[in-house]
Amino acid sequence: MTTLPELQTPAALVDVRRMQANIARMQSRMDALGVKLRPHVKTSKCLPVVQAQLAAGARGITVSTLKEAEEFFDAGIGDILYAVGIAPNKLERALALRRRGCDLKLVTDNLAGAEAVAGFGREQGEAFEVLVEIDVDGHRSGIPPEGALLLEVGRALHEGGVRLGGVMAHAGGSYACDTPECLRAAAEQERARTVRAAERLRAAGLPCPNVSVGSTPTALSAQSLEGVTEVRAGVYVFFDLVMHNIGVCTMDEIALSVLTTVIGHQQDKGWAIVDAGWMAMSRDRGTQAQKRDFGLGQVCTEEGAPIDGYIIESANQEHGIVASVAGTDRHIAERFPVGTRLRILPNHACATAAQFPAYCALLPEGTAAWPRFQGW
Amino acid sequence: MTTLPELQTPAALVDVRRMQANIARMQSRMDALGVKLRPHVKTSKCLPVVQAQLAAGARGITVSTLKEAEEFFDAGIGDILYAVGIAPNKLERALALRRRGCDLKLVTDNLAGAEAVAGFGREQGEAFEVLVEIDVDGHRSGIPPEGALLLEVGRALHEGGVRLGGVMAHAGGSYACDTPECLRAAAEQERARTVRAAERLRAAGLPCPNVSVGSTPTALSAQSLEGVTEVRAGVYVFFDLVMHNIGVCTMDEIALSVLTTVIGHQQDKGWAIVDAGWMAMSRDRGTQAQKRDFGLGQVCTEEGAPIDGYIIESANQEHGIVASVAGTDRHIAERFPVGTRLRILPNHACATAAQFPAYCALLPEGTAAWPRFQGW
Repeated sequence: MTTLPELQTPAALVDVRRMQANIARMQSRMDALGVKLRPHVKTSKCLPVVQAQLAAGARGITVSTLKEAEEFFDAGIGDILYAVGIAPNKLERALALRRRGCDLKLVTDNLAGAEAVAGFGREQGEAFEVLVEIDVDGHRSGIPPEGALLLEVGRALHEGGVRLGGVMAHAGGSYACDTPECLRAAAEQERARTVRAAERLRAAGLPCPNVSVGSTPTALSAQSLEGVTEVRAGVYVFFDLVMHNIGVCTMDEIALSVLTTVIGHQQDKGWAIVDAGWMAMSRDRGTQAQKRDFGLGQVCTEEGAPIDGYIIESANQEHGIVASVAGTDRHIAERFPVGTRLRILPNHACATAAQFPAYCALLPEGTAAWPRFQGW
Repeated sequence: MTTLPELQTPAALVDVRRMQANIARMQSRMDALGVKLRPHVKTSKCLPVVQAQLAAGARGITVSTLKEAEEFFDAGIGDILYAVGIAPNKLERALALRRRGCDLKLVTDNLAGAEAVAGFGREQGEAFEVLVEIDVDGHRSGIPPEGALLLEVGRALHEGGVRLGGVMAHAGGSYACDTPECLRAAAEQERARTVRAAERLRAAGLPCPNVSVGSTPTALSAQSLEGVTEVRAGVYVFFDLVMHNIGVCTMDEIALSVLTTVIGHQQDKGWAIVDAGWMAMSRDRGTQAQKRDFGLGQVCTEEGAPIDGYIIESANQEHGIVASVAGTDRHIAERFPVGTRLRILPNHACATAAQFPAYCALLPEGTAAWPRFQGW
């Protein structure tokens, strides 16, 4: 096994102890609230991570691409919700997965999508299962819980021969919160509006077995999930600086970091140049509009202790510029000499992880390569 | 062969005709200016692309990672400049490449780096070749052409047993230009300061065979490259919206685009939701501070014709939000019905390309998968 000092940089480190604690925390909350947890695997795209989530009690997975569905089905995971509105030209691939025995569930939020699934299903003799996507906060896709469209789409599915699997929503608007009150309100809004949509479908005589909600901030803030059957959350498995700013994790719960090496300085400017540029960190600036802007990441020691006030201020493809937020540090070359190794906590774990073909998992006995996949 | 309508989305399309024209344009400029072209392959990380550059007359390649050096050396390309300051812990891998016969050249801009290479080289009996990185515009790494440090680093290399390969600079500051005058001045500044550094080394009795400069904007704007021996440029092979705003390409020279499908709408907001989110486009917002902000990309028809005023306004991981810059388009669902396929021109080709495991090359006879690699 490779040890930490032997790793080539940049490398994506997973602190497995922290990851397991994050998984246990979310699972115990969901258990206490009486709902299933269907983790969103788009964050890790990595089998050992997902296996740890399932071993801790998760029931099924959520995916953002058919590639994820194919990869995880090949690895033996059958209960999969593809939580992005289905494009008609992806139905062939979805069918192929179902024909192989995958319990793949689809999502739509419009009549054209519903009719495309129903029509293709009849043509192929396949009863697809589809959940209707509900808009709970105006941030992205979904049908409002009130209004005629919900029932029209529900009927188009049900009467078109599709198994109407229920409703699903994602409270992406919760990312704008940074107080417990805001988070609790976002969670309750997500719950109440999604349950309301389910009740309207049922009152119209349509089936609605599943009521699926979820985002990491709302999952960790909900006081009640009455009427909800399952929660989807993804980034909690690693956490990141955006979640730290929202207030649902502490900095020492962040399980993903980028190991990097100092390769030079511009002493007059107070810069240390490291080999983690945007290719390693991603271009995600998720903390820019939050209460604390971490640039492209928080600098820590090689062992992982945050060095207060030092961030990646900017980056080129393979160059990161480390600087002090307090002003020009003219002693930065003595503080971080060439060859110094640092860890950088990312703004957004999903984006940073996607830049790497594999994680270096930190285990008690050394590091292990945990592959992740890319593409669609 | 797959045809365009059969491609799954999102997909990274390379318009090979445009790419070949871009390659020919840059090569003929370099030929006319009397310098070698050593293209930076960090943009494509793709063998067929690099082979096209070499076939057109490029001499050697520039890489941003040792992984690129290893991949392209394995494919038969031996003359490689690794243009990021060497980290001491990467010397073993660099040595392994040289021992296998790769003519790998390194770069440093500091005494610690120079001494590390010299010491390791003596220990291993290997005469590494190193170029000294020069700072021509204060944007990143490099040693000023004036001052004592240049000669100190040059002597540490030369007297330490390293082959002093010359000087290299990258005028990253040219990305802030958007007029021909600014670009010509940036190019002349890059040339003059790099040549000045070379002259100072030579005047001190140190060898300086190579004088290497380059960025796509300066390469296409230089009026004279007197004293320069080679030019490195990367993004010209595909071009992108940042280069369009700088003024070195037209929109119809951009050879990279992302094919995407409409999956839904929020009619009241004037949104069409597409399956190219930030995972496909990258989070690069390079046009944000330029004269024309394209959001996360310019919308085009499936055939590639720009649809003026429609951009990807924002994105989640697998959702892109297409909207009109002129204000809410309440007819967007009729304009772009579910299932409509669009092409999106990227802000930054290097960043968008990195999100894909392969390109779909558009050839007269159909499309071909051109793999690219990821990681370090």
